[in-house]
Amino acid sequence: MIGVANFVPRAKLCLAILLLVAGQAFAQGDPLPSWNEGAAKKAIVEFVQVTTTQGNAQFVPPEERIAAFDQDGTLWVEHPIYTQVMYVLERVPALVKAKPELAKVAPYSTVLELLRGDRGAMEKLTEADLFKLLAATSTGMPVEVFQTEAKKWIAEAKDPRWKKPYTELTYLPMQEVLKYLRANGYRTYIVTGGGQDFVRVYAEQTYGIPPEQVVGTAGGTTYGYAKDGKPFLTKDPKLLLNNNNAGKPEGIHLMIGRRPYAAFGNSTGDRQMLEYTRAGNGARLAMLVLHDDARREYAYGPAQGLPATKVGAFTQAVYDEAKKKGWTVISMKDDWKKIFAFE
Amino acid sequence: MIGVANFVPRAKLCLAILLLVAGQAFAQGDPLPSWNEGAAKKAIVEFVQVTTTQGNAQFVPPEERIAAFDQDGTLWVEHPIYTQVMYVLERVPALVKAKPELAKVAPYSTVLELLRGDRGAMEKLTEADLFKLLAATSTGMPVEVFQTEAKKWIAEAKDPRWKKPYTELTYLPMQEVLKYLRANGYRTYIVTGGGQDFVRVYAEQTYGIPPEQVVGTAGGTTYGYAKDGKPFLTKDPKLLLNNNNAGKPEGIHLMIGRRPYAAFGNSTGDRQMLEYTRAGNGARLAMLVLHDDARREYAYGPAQGLPATKVGAFTQAVYDEAKKKGWTVISMKDDWKKIFAFE
Repeated sequence: MIGVANFVPRAKLCLAILLLVAGQAFAQGDPLPSWNEGAAKKAIVEFVQVTTTQGNAQFVPPEERIAAFDQDGTLWVEHPIYTQVMYVLERVPALVKAKPELAKVAPYSTVLELLRGDRGAMEKLTEADLFKLLAATSTGMPVEVFQTEAKKWIAEAKDPRWKKPYTELTYLPMQEVLKYLRANGYRTYIVTGGGQDFVRVYAEQTYGIPPEQVVGTAGGTTYGYAKDGKPFLTKDPKLLLNNNNAGKPEGIHLMIGRRPYAAFGNSTGDRQMLEYTRAGNGARLAMLVLHDDARREYAYGPAQGLPATKVGAFTQAVYDEAKKKGWTVISMKDDWKKIFAFE
Repeated sequence: MIGVANFVPRAKLCLAILLLVAGQAFAQGDPLPSWNEGAAKKAIVEFVQVTTTQGNAQFVPPEERIAAFDQDGTLWVEHPIYTQVMYVLERVPALVKAKPELAKVAPYSTVLELLRGDRGAMEKLTEADLFKLLAATSTGMPVEVFQTEAKKWIAEAKDPRWKKPYTELTYLPMQEVLKYLRANGYRTYIVTGGGQDFVRVYAEQTYGIPPEQVVGTAGGTTYGYAKDGKPFLTKDPKLLLNNNNAGKPEGIHLMIGRRPYAAFGNSTGDRQMLEYTRAGNGARLAMLVLHDDARREYAYGPAQGLPATKVGAFTQAVYDEAKKKGWTVISMKDDWKKIFAFE
């Protein structure tokens, strides 16, 4: 029989038992089962241990525990074409249907050739073309319309190699890192060169990362009123934040206002974020994913004589910086037991 | 004797008891003790009840629980001069000391007159002057230098009327609302026209609001390297986000990416944020603080024949919109039992 008067001490005992149970469960399981034993796994586990153990000189208070993850090539496949670029290209037919005169105008005509199977057409598209297509397909509409369109596409589109939704092409070992850090009080942020509004559409379901923890390349919006007086936001083509290279630490300061303790990237565009993270006091983890597994994923990048490609690789200079400054390179081939959950 | 095998069912029983204890403690205490009974208090309590009760048609999933608070005039005193403007003005002597030729140049000379006690000098400062002073005192230095200077000032500066640090001039009833919402799973954001970097310096200690939950008027930063190779961010005078009026919902979309369920303001600059909040589906709370207590704080604004002032009041049009659209006006005089914790 438990009287009301017994509730409080009883609750304290219960709390102690719960903490004990939780502690045991944690101690028993490997938080990173898809990782092979090695320097990369060791670096992650040691970082978590020293920064979350009370009394350790490198202990980090829970409110300061921030970890930043690049997305393309770090959390999911980016090769041979970024997923968001696929989205933009596949929106073009609808655009041309609405305005048929575009069918004969570059870059729209080039995209139509590409979608008809002419893979060489991709080479013709310049970065300026891609920005033009991005503005044409992803701005000028209310925020909610963009979200609905992008959500529908991401639910239906499939990667041509694996014939699976792009959201299943996330790296299982990195999903484990996200969960392991969160279980230890870290707030995990995506800090991506991709479009902030695009990534926010699926980040919560795909990575457990809520919209407010997605920092990406962002345009402005304009507040206005519909005919019925209801206010809404329209997506502008005006660029506010180019979240690549130096834009990554600048975006982190704007959106988070704290320096991360851990950062993960895979390309030259992540260099400044990793530098900025490592330049803080105490234990700071900086990791670079190396795409060296042509069989299970792709092989590209400078190390081991791999050919560089247009997409996302880090350069020899960044690889050298990593080695010199004590960043940890993650070899997909050697460090990851499994790459995808569906394997 | 408790065997290891008993831990899990035992833990479940314990959890149930803990929840019961927590529920009872909650039901027993008034979460808003500094509020008089009335429409405003009732609106807050009912909002929390319907949005956090499982099974209620207006239940809001925890991840979507966002509440947005204007700062100046809503969470703390803004009259007769915004605290950040005081900061900017009081940085001017150090600026003049470093560059003596500024002493004879407006607007620096005007500020020096003002600081010598010529209160009329304030009238001479235009908005353009204030932006110039803001740029001169708050940009061009590394982020950390700004933070150190602002933190030092906020710890030492005192409001001339109460002779207390500005951070003690927060409204106790609003502090209770912040805590009450957080206790019910809401993440509380400051959405201020004030400088994002400035407010972030003290928001965590003053309101329990971490830097990443402060959305404010923000300039850019520039990533660069010190002579020793260490990277750092320099504050730029370039404006990225003017977080007033339409800038508030635009800033909310940029920084949070979700529409708030509750918003609190006190001036015309908050109108669009309140409209945007109320335009969402389900239960949405929009509240306007009316400064109608000349004895305990200040009286300004359009209602009840109070004189409008340069600082922060809402206009008659916003007051009328509030009444028409079902926003709740909070009367400081009638709704708040206590205004400051030190009373």
